[in-house]
Amino acid sequence: MTVTLKTIEEARETLQGVAKKTPLIESPVLGSKVGGEVFFKYENLQKTGSFKIRGAVNKIAHLTPEEAKRGVIAASAGNHAQGVALGATAKGIKATIVMPATTPLAKVSATKGYGGNVILEGAAFDEAYAKALKVQKETNAVFVHPFDDEYVIAGQGTIALEILEDLPDVDMVVVPVGGGGMISGIASGLKLSNPKIKVVGVESAAVPSMKESIDAGKIVTVPAGVTAAEGINVRTPGNITFEMVKKYVDEIVTVTEDEIAEAMLYLIEKGKNLAEGAGATPLAAVLAGKIDCKGKKVVLMVSGGNADITFINRIINKALLLEGRRAEFKIIMEDRCGETAKLLKLISDNNANILFITQSMYESTLEVESQIMTLVLECSDMDHRNLIAKKITEAGYRLVK
Amino acid sequence: MTVTLKTIEEARETLQGVAKKTPLIESPVLGSKVGGEVFFKYENLQKTGSFKIRGAVNKIAHLTPEEAKRGVIAASAGNHAQGVALGATAKGIKATIVMPATTPLAKVSATKGYGGNVILEGAAFDEAYAKALKVQKETNAVFVHPFDDEYVIAGQGTIALEILEDLPDVDMVVVPVGGGGMISGIASGLKLSNPKIKVVGVESAAVPSMKESIDAGKIVTVPAGVTAAEGINVRTPGNITFEMVKKYVDEIVTVTEDEIAEAMLYLIEKGKNLAEGAGATPLAAVLAGKIDCKGKKVVLMVSGGNADITFINRIINKALLLEGRRAEFKIIMEDRCGETAKLLKLISDNNANILFITQSMYESTLEVESQIMTLVLECSDMDHRNLIAKKITEAGYRLVK
Repeated sequence: MTVTLKTIEEARETLQGVAKKTPLIESPVLGSKVGGEVFFKYENLQKTGSFKIRGAVNKIAHLTPEEAKRGVIAASAGNHAQGVALGATAKGIKATIVMPATTPLAKVSATKGYGGNVILEGAAFDEAYAKALKVQKETNAVFVHPFDDEYVIAGQGTIALEILEDLPDVDMVVVPVGGGGMISGIASGLKLSNPKIKVVGVESAAVPSMKESIDAGKIVTVPAGVTAAEGINVRTPGNITFEMVKKYVDEIVTVTEDEIAEAMLYLIEKGKNLAEGAGATPLAAVLAGKIDCKGKKVVLMVSGGNADITFINRIINKALLLEGRRAEFKIIMEDRCGETAKLLKLISDNNANILFITQSMYESTLEVESQIMTLVLECSDMDHRNLIAKKITEAGYRLVK
Repeated sequence: MTVTLKTIEEARETLQGVAKKTPLIESPVLGSKVGGEVFFKYENLQKTGSFKIRGAVNKIAHLTPEEAKRGVIAASAGNHAQGVALGATAKGIKATIVMPATTPLAKVSATKGYGGNVILEGAAFDEAYAKALKVQKETNAVFVHPFDDEYVIAGQGTIALEILEDLPDVDMVVVPVGGGGMISGIASGLKLSNPKIKVVGVESAAVPSMKESIDAGKIVTVPAGVTAAEGINVRTPGNITFEMVKKYVDEIVTVTEDEIAEAMLYLIEKGKNLAEGAGATPLAAVLAGKIDCKGKKVVLMVSGGNADITFINRIINKALLLEGRRAEFKIIMEDRCGETAKLLKLISDNNANILFITQSMYESTLEVESQIMTLVLECSDMDHRNLIAKKITEAGYRLVK
């Protein structure tokens, strides 16, 4: 099977009633910021919280009756697990999902909730994957690859048809890249419909495997990296996806961890929408000025929203620190009655709220009769933060940080 | 002017190109939890981040040419400010918005960004309102009431037409109630189309002015209250809205602050969507079991999403604490070398992550040779939290909290 416009259109028929058409919503605020018209394709509002169900369902629909009887198996700690579980259940097929034993409870419950038979194994993905291969040999179930499979790719390609339906004169679509399944599907769907539409991929700078492979002209494996964009943390692109990206994708850019955090916060504040790290990478690239949107109609894929809520809290914290809306100060003050109140009055006079405070004399570098106070403040912005730093210094305190 | 199906339909024409049709998205997860089909009407994805622009635009469109020349004025710290500013700008009319000087910078900037001429005055809404009346007298601008106005109500009623278009066989619509503008518009739009559709209002238990007024059979003013649902913190219902709610609304229920926090977290985690407190009240009522959805097609209004991000962080924190996913322990331990490591090994063995830790001997109730440790942990759920509490006690420590 080759991915063509016809196979993508057939996939769309196949997905009817299982996956849903997701909303394409314009952000006039972002548009006016970058000088174009910008739309978010909210695939995080897809069933299971990510686009993965599209490919999984299309793959499963093309099993032979004999294969279907054997059931499917997959290894995943994330969106693929939920996509395969629901996709199989919807078609009345048994799905076994091997997840690392360290997978957050919420994701395990969700996968079970979609009807998947979950096996927990190992501390990391590799061990779960090895277990899945072992179980596959025992049960002869069909292994569903997360990205390097034409049926999976054609399933993800249905996103392109929805974009063209809602915005026929789209100029550019920006897509996260991990193994390359989603971008291969979307890019082929778009380019085969209208070769003038530009397709840009975005990878985490921590694991830029597709970009390095394209630059090298052959598939390369990059070193392991840590990224908030877990969903695209893939060290080796697929064989099929590498060829399709080479053929259909115009450009791949990378984004840093700080850029991803800021994009997630921007989407929450301006879009009232929660993306997981991977899902925020297209916006991260645009906000960082790495993609020129001037005068263009641009669609940014928000590929998934299955972020752990405690992680979201950390991301918000990080982004607020980067923007100066939270600030930590370490201040050397005299060890004397009334000093703390005096310093805190200065903070109060400058309209900052205190989130955290400690005071200590146990620091070996301190002069005798000094103490060090650590303050975490809520400020309006970086200017406000800097003003407070200035006032503290002007009042005669020594600011260590 | 009276609010009729015709005036609501005319309002919809008027809103074309200014306000947009917002998505109605099903939540199968919530549906299966409550035994019905549940949909969110995401009015927080409306321009300006709330439904308020609908009423404001419809009001402004009905000004006489002479009134339009004089411009409009409003007092608001929130969504009404942004709605009036953008609504007026879209129609080429000057808007003056008086906001309390304490309004978060982001909301002031947004209102200015929508073209509003912002005056900052006073510490609270009342002072801003008084200033607006004064400026109104000086400039003779038209005062735009946030809810007690038929044109405003008809504008909000356009939401009902969109719901009926997307879900013609809807059984029940649940709507936040503050002054009563949105629910009056939606309820009249629904009931005049199909009297069988049930309309339920939700108020904050802290400020239940409409419920108490309906129960009393006359408009009453309730005492001032503090609520996370700022957008519906209204102490006295409107005259017009009181009559319309009496006529068209089937029932009003109230929700607590904890229920609102849990609903906001649920929407973030399951809906990947950010509601402000008021916008989460319908979901809060459903999650708390206060509205029977069994076998029904139910639409929950998410009226707005303009929540301050630092407030969101606090809400997430509160909701996680309520669910046992964050837990604070105060533990009495011996003041002896190795005790801290021993205690923390116990925590580690039970798979909880540490978020915060302090240890102190400065507590007057402590026995000599004791210390108190305060630990904030991340747990999986309430069972996990309780298990850890049990393990701490079994190991011979005294748990103060």
